[in-house]
Amino acid sequence: MQGERVEAKEGLLMSEPEFKKIIIFGVGLIGGSFALALRKINAVGEVVGFGRRIETLEQAKQLGIIDRIGSDYAELNDADIVLLATPVGQMGELMARIAPHLGQHTLVTDGGSTKGDVVAAARANMGDRLAQFIPAHPIAGAEKTGPEAALPDLYVGKKVVLTSMPENSPEAVARIRKAWELCGAKVSELTPQQHDEVFAAVSHLPHLLSFALVHDLAQRDNRDLLLSFAASGFRDFTRIAASSPEMWRDICLANRDALLRELRQYADELYVLHQALEQSDACKLDEVFTEARKVRSNWSPQ
Amino acid sequence: MQGERVEAKEGLLMSEPEFKKIIIFGVGLIGGSFALALRKINAVGEVVGFGRRIETLEQAKQLGIIDRIGSDYAELNDADIVLLATPVGQMGELMARIAPHLGQHTLVTDGGSTKGDVVAAARANMGDRLAQFIPAHPIAGAEKTGPEAALPDLYVGKKVVLTSMPENSPEAVARIRKAWELCGAKVSELTPQQHDEVFAAVSHLPHLLSFALVHDLAQRDNRDLLLSFAASGFRDFTRIAASSPEMWRDICLANRDALLRELRQYADELYVLHQALEQSDACKLDEVFTEARKVRSNWSPQ
Repeated sequence: MQGERVEAKEGLLMSEPEFKKIIIFGVGLIGGSFALALRKINAVGEVVGFGRRIETLEQAKQLGIIDRIGSDYAELNDADIVLLATPVGQMGELMARIAPHLGQHTLVTDGGSTKGDVVAAARANMGDRLAQFIPAHPIAGAEKTGPEAALPDLYVGKKVVLTSMPENSPEAVARIRKAWELCGAKVSELTPQQHDEVFAAVSHLPHLLSFALVHDLAQRDNRDLLLSFAASGFRDFTRIAASSPEMWRDICLANRDALLRELRQYADELYVLHQALEQSDACKLDEVFTEARKVRSNWSPQ
Repeated sequence: MQGERVEAKEGLLMSEPEFKKIIIFGVGLIGGSFALALRKINAVGEVVGFGRRIETLEQAKQLGIIDRIGSDYAELNDADIVLLATPVGQMGELMARIAPHLGQHTLVTDGGSTKGDVVAAARANMGDRLAQFIPAHPIAGAEKTGPEAALPDLYVGKKVVLTSMPENSPEAVARIRKAWELCGAKVSELTPQQHDEVFAAVSHLPHLLSFALVHDLAQRDNRDLLLSFAASGFRDFTRIAASSPEMWRDICLANRDALLRELRQYADELYVLHQALEQSDACKLDEVFTEARKVRSNWSPQ
């Protein structure tokens, strides 16, 4: 750590910025919150925003997320960190465009929800800058998107998973870890494959199931009647069905193989419940529900 | 309405109780909250609790849910309302036991989550008191159970569905409607069959799916790793998997046919998504997710 820490009213406040310059590609929920978190504790000297839509960048500037809008990739040369917070599907192309402009000490990280595909994109597009890319997944989903959804404390207490590659130096990984920790996150590490298997099970599958339920009901002639009687159980079960369709389409496709395995295993589970129900097998239902309740009751988000 | 209303600090307060005596079978979340709600506004003179476990009844008395513990079915003769708030599976037997003791003006209602089976149980067990039974389903689920979970405002703004039978007089239905409205609920009416079809879709199926997901993950060797990375999406999706296994086993069995139809339709929906994913059909995924998001975003619990 370069800057000194002083305790301020709102917690950690740095007397000198840890990072002189940070560049954010995609100034929405993930990228914007990263910038706001580091700005809040004076951990960054300057934040420059890049993106495809000038309106979004202007909005981010007005909201105090970025200091200015970048227009020249020469900017990348003296940046400490470049955060790729675009949809995962755009990252490969973006990497190819930025790699030639990165300075020797510039590190790149990302906010993508899948990691196997991002690592593959990096290997295909980062060229001799590959070692400077440290893949990350901040676990801070929300249905809302865009700069106005960004929050300085979005990452406080949340998990960020780094899936570093053999090419990454320990120092580079430590520096990216530090950046996420300064945002308030708890950082852990998995391999890209482990990451994608874990999140297929605990995140991607539930999203698919939730979208599927709402879509199923939405097709019915009596959908308004049905929805008028839906209550808090339905509300919570389907909250994630209000997530970004584009983002989740990309995530599902990016993590297709692991998600297909999860979906098949879940279908097997439903088949067992269908059989139990068809045979009015109270014991089997009891067994499944009791085990589920026990595990769910003992679990809380960490 | 018999008693006069006066507006008190906490809203409606009756100068004279609407109901002289109410009897609650099952003094847990549903029955206890009904009693607390009516007591809070002075709508009931006396609340008597019946149940299978004396400890639970003692606890309800200590919590101010009931005035006293009932021990003699002769009590039923001068009660205004008897609420059956036991598990649905016990209601038939209970009806057979209480029916001979009901006074001519005593009305019976229930808090069961399924209605076709409760109506069938009433037809089989209420004898010549059938017309005095007005089936009801208060939509106020919660994972918590027991007297300590009961709240005076549990029903405020919540829906209660009455599924009256041709035998019920309009006056009897109106009086039970009034009782639930005094609890703060918004009362609507469906036929028992409509009710069970609606709730199979918007409540029973989501519960089954949520239990199934947690049970599926709970079987894995790496379940601790998986659960350590589960976040807010998983938390909300699986909140209802912490519900009472006994209650949901009974609900699933009681509404078996409608639930099996829903489960099959949902499996068809998952099959479509499986095919789309296997074929990397981005358009299909987009279409399903976009429609789901639109419908879910425009919906809120009423």
